[in-house]
Amino acid sequence: MMQLIKSAAEMQQEADRIRTAQRKIGLVPTMGFLHAGHLKLIEEARTSCDVVIVSIYVNPTQFAPNEDFSRYPRDFERDKTMAQNSQVDILFCPENEEMYGDDFGTYVEEQEVSRILEGKFRPTHYRGVATVVAKLFNICKPHVAVFGQKDAQQVFIVSKMVRDLNFDVTIVVVPIVREPDGLAMSSRNVYLSSADRKNALVLHEALASLERRIRNGERDVRVLRSEAENMILGKGSPSIDYVAFVDPDEFREIDRIVKPSVLVALAARFSGTRLIDNALISLDEH
Amino acid sequence: MMQLIKSAAEMQQEADRIRTAQRKIGLVPTMGFLHAGHLKLIEEARTSCDVVIVSIYVNPTQFAPNEDFSRYPRDFERDKTMAQNSQVDILFCPENEEMYGDDFGTYVEEQEVSRILEGKFRPTHYRGVATVVAKLFNICKPHVAVFGQKDAQQVFIVSKMVRDLNFDVTIVVVPIVREPDGLAMSSRNVYLSSADRKNALVLHEALASLERRIRNGERDVRVLRSEAENMILGKGSPSIDYVAFVDPDEFREIDRIVKPSVLVALAARFSGTRLIDNALISLDEH
Repeated sequence: MMQLIKSAAEMQQEADRIRTAQRKIGLVPTMGFLHAGHLKLIEEARTSCDVVIVSIYVNPTQFAPNEDFSRYPRDFERDKTMAQNSQVDILFCPENEEMYGDDFGTYVEEQEVSRILEGKFRPTHYRGVATVVAKLFNICKPHVAVFGQKDAQQVFIVSKMVRDLNFDVTIVVVPIVREPDGLAMSSRNVYLSSADRKNALVLHEALASLERRIRNGERDVRVLRSEAENMILGKGSPSIDYVAFVDPDEFREIDRIVKPSVLVALAARFSGTRLIDNALISLDEH
Repeated sequence: MMQLIKSAAEMQQEADRIRTAQRKIGLVPTMGFLHAGHLKLIEEARTSCDVVIVSIYVNPTQFAPNEDFSRYPRDFERDKTMAQNSQVDILFCPENEEMYGDDFGTYVEEQEVSRILEGKFRPTHYRGVATVVAKLFNICKPHVAVFGQKDAQQVFIVSKMVRDLNFDVTIVVVPIVREPDGLAMSSRNVYLSSADRKNALVLHEALASLERRIRNGERDVRVLRSEAENMILGKGSPSIDYVAFVDPDEFREIDRIVKPSVLVALAARFSGTRLIDNALISLDEH
């Protein structure tokens, strides 16, 4: 039977009890509206942990005032059923008042990678992410926390936070889960009209095309970016936030591909719905 | 026999072992050069905890480039003996490379109280304090952490960080320990010439005088501050950074004393040595 916990103090006590019994805790932090991508994270947590906690919390501090916090899709009953069916042990689902008191004012901030790519378009986003993940770590006391590669920059920043602040948590990353037609799974996909839903496939196709071009020897990021941008703009003229080529070890943008792998990350808006996708491309096939 | 631990990973493993054995951990974070004030903190930790950890680490991120990081007094052998004699269980004394890697870049920052009083004169100080305390909490995994009231603002900010980020740590505060003549204990007192050492007594005397004036009915902060400043300036003309009157619940400066207690905090420099002191003054004697 899945436990439902809403209080941070109660969750901490329960985590202490589990740890004292020498059982291993895996945490899957989510904003709810669960999809097959989340279920993969839960499955992954189960492989190495005795107790799987899923947190469901739409974190206001990672949304800017002009963003979609209030209309972000929520369906708690459906989430609960999906979690139960996935053998989740504890669903931690705090209210806003439990997470942020009126006088809240202490933030965790990674100060370099947080400012590029997503961070350029969403300046306070990763400060909100780092802060809420630190809070969830302190509340759920996991041995392992599982994140999706879908937000590659988030994975990098959270891993860096763990190292920099000595959180005793192992970060496990799960590959992007896609719809059968290639669209990366996202709770935000429900925002898409059916026309935009089709057009959005171009993001995945552009990444696949970049992979072929890079494996065929193209190393100049300017050339590659312009090809990808033309391809994306041809499908319903979305607005592109960025198509970025990143050194995956340091998460810094590069001009030329010299290392054996490159992370290509992109963000575009289809009629106002902002989607991200990425691919870690190895220069040699395997 | 006191354990000496220099590695964060080893300290975490040891903390896990202690916690699994259901023993309670008390942490006393220090910058070393221990004095009777620190010993009181250790004593306090002992009253409620099974295992007392003292950390000794002169934290570079809480010093500005123009401050006394490099000449801050250090005497590890003496500290070790004092800790041993005080029945400390574990001395955690990491090197700089253990605490801050070359690519360190994630900070914890309380964003309001950190900017006033000390924070005005030391703009990055409390960011460094909050960050290193968060790290020490994640490394030593204490149930209880003991701080001195000597840095009242630090106590407030650390307590706020604990609440805001859900650290499962109880903060215990120990009153200021003073030399027989009234000077607040501080590792920095060794910087003082014998003339300045005598002049510095005026800080304590000014606080005592303010207490009398407040209990006798004076409520106007402008009047009280000007009296205290004149008194302090009369003793060897130190430079005063601030004499502040603070609402102890919210840590906000006030113009007029209306609540039943007020925190008076001050900072002054005697030939370049910066000293702080404070007193929590209740309006009614008891």
